[in-house]
Amino acid sequence: MGCIMLVLGVDAGGTSTRAVLATADGQCVGYGRGGSGNPTSSGVSLARDGVFDAVGQALRVAGADLGDVTGLAMAIAGHDSGGGENSWILDPLRERGFRGALHFESDLLAMYSSGAVAPVGYGVVCGTGASAVRVQGGRVAAAADGLGWLLGDRGSGFWIGRRAAHAVVDQLEGVGAETALTPLVLHAAGVAVDGAAEPGRDGRPIGLERLIRALYAQRPVRLATLAPLVFDAAEAADPVACGILERAGELLVQTIELVQQGSGPVVAGGSILARDGAPRRLLREHFAAAEGEYPVVLVDSGAAGAAVLALRNAGAPVDERVLARLRAGIPAG
Amino acid sequence: MGCIMLVLGVDAGGTSTRAVLATADGQCVGYGRGGSGNPTSSGVSLARDGVFDAVGQALRVAGADLGDVTGLAMAIAGHDSGGGENSWILDPLRERGFRGALHFESDLLAMYSSGAVAPVGYGVVCGTGASAVRVQGGRVAAAADGLGWLLGDRGSGFWIGRRAAHAVVDQLEGVGAETALTPLVLHAAGVAVDGAAEPGRDGRPIGLERLIRALYAQRPVRLATLAPLVFDAAEAADPVACGILERAGELLVQTIELVQQGSGPVVAGGSILARDGAPRRLLREHFAAAEGEYPVVLVDSGAAGAAVLALRNAGAPVDERVLARLRAGIPAG
Repeated sequence: MGCIMLVLGVDAGGTSTRAVLATADGQCVGYGRGGSGNPTSSGVSLARDGVFDAVGQALRVAGADLGDVTGLAMAIAGHDSGGGENSWILDPLRERGFRGALHFESDLLAMYSSGAVAPVGYGVVCGTGASAVRVQGGRVAAAADGLGWLLGDRGSGFWIGRRAAHAVVDQLEGVGAETALTPLVLHAAGVAVDGAAEPGRDGRPIGLERLIRALYAQRPVRLATLAPLVFDAAEAADPVACGILERAGELLVQTIELVQQGSGPVVAGGSILARDGAPRRLLREHFAAAEGEYPVVLVDSGAAGAAVLALRNAGAPVDERVLARLRAGIPAG
Repeated sequence: MGCIMLVLGVDAGGTSTRAVLATADGQCVGYGRGGSGNPTSSGVSLARDGVFDAVGQALRVAGADLGDVTGLAMAIAGHDSGGGENSWILDPLRERGFRGALHFESDLLAMYSSGAVAPVGYGVVCGTGASAVRVQGGRVAAAADGLGWLLGDRGSGFWIGRRAAHAVVDQLEGVGAETALTPLVLHAAGVAVDGAAEPGRDGRPIGLERLIRALYAQRPVRLATLAPLVFDAAEAADPVACGILERAGELLVQTIELVQQGSGPVVAGGSILARDGAPRRLLREHFAAAEGEYPVVLVDSGAAGAAVLALRNAGAPVDERVLARLRAGIPAG
């Protein structure tokens, strides 16, 4: 591949890793996916495998090797401070012939850069977690939330899923309204819906004890997997589900307001905003009402943005056209 | 000890175990304490040690041995169904000479029986968790809450502690009111209060990131340890802390209403009700307003009640006088 500059953008998430091998004009010449690339959440060994699986695929597609790569930008939550703890991935990269520069980048900056090239703007993610950033001068200038499932992530998929579980528990316990979420959540938790309302040993519905047992048997963060059921129930006009999604959207807007200062493009990502519903609607209404309206750009990962950051780090200018080419060249999903 | 009937009441909790060796007329002739006696939360090996430490002490004080014991009632959360899975404790008891009858009992029934002998009444516990039961015919006829920290325990110590952490996070994040809880919670989490409000890397207060890191480093249920700080702040008239405790009290009353059906004595236990504050006040007001007023009796464990249940299981009648004697004979704490 000799004289063509190649960079690697790696979006290393807690669930999956995406690698984009790109040229200076934004051609995606290779793309690959791997498992978790976050050493904090998954351990160094798994994260290294995730990154090398994705990178290896991207290189194979292009018939390139690590020696051809000028720079690598790795977007990863909690690792945007750069320097220091990069030996877990830099050492094996060097062993396999990588001679370029490695930069760690904010996962939120990569997400923003997947949708906008303006040096000033906003990134909003609402998936399992929720957070917002203001980008200024091409860096993260202010951040809000992203404080985790136990104490933050207001309006996130976890927040929505926990509210759904609560609504069902409250109905079965007799302190909450009847909701269409109940059969949906019972079914998702593997609890028989038929007979769930029958009184058990202590007078409470049999389904309550079974649901509690099923939900405590999994990691708390798995409550986020109930969020799609809330969208389903809201589409069927269930008032409890509608209320949960409206409130989630309000909280998300509140998080955005914490970093908002002037106008700029808005890039949105994450499973909750990917779906049509109150959170995305309230987000759009909020920015439509704000001075100097910008459309909300939806992106499905930070992969293109990681490549953008790798190009910028290598001194290659990135404009709308380069970004559009990158986005068009990256397979969906 | 020959001809005097002796029974053992064991209150096997998740943190500590209490054993009471009692005669038929309610004399406490031995008392002992051990670590956790709950095999579900602590594992069989630790739980067995906890029970035998407590039982061993109680027997030593009286110069008795297991062969002298007619019956043993073991109060333990989630084990009130009796039968089946008791070999973890029955086998070693038999090996050490126990020839009497072993009964598992509801921890909430033991708590109730520590404060009342009436066959109909109410037990309310608010410690790390929260639950209420209606006792009828000397058994638990209805139960409410006790659904755990993630999905239930409304108004409990965990609920209060999590609200406190949220209030502090919200203040530092800029979405919540200023509260006296902030310095208290930061200090308790080992985060320097001086300079906590200074802006950090992403523009947010340094104290926020440090607090989040400290709180996520511990098990979620440890948030319950913040509850006493909410009482402290409420005593100093902090509106946020007062609001948390009022709401906790309302939720606890709501839980009680789920099992309430006619009047009877009310026995209350747990660290949140042991302390003067809104939850206990609202509980007292609720029952004072109810038809056929009974005073709320506070108890500090289910130890006396476990002995009461052991006596009843052995066919010995227990009246007010026997219970009073038992309670007087058990050391505090």
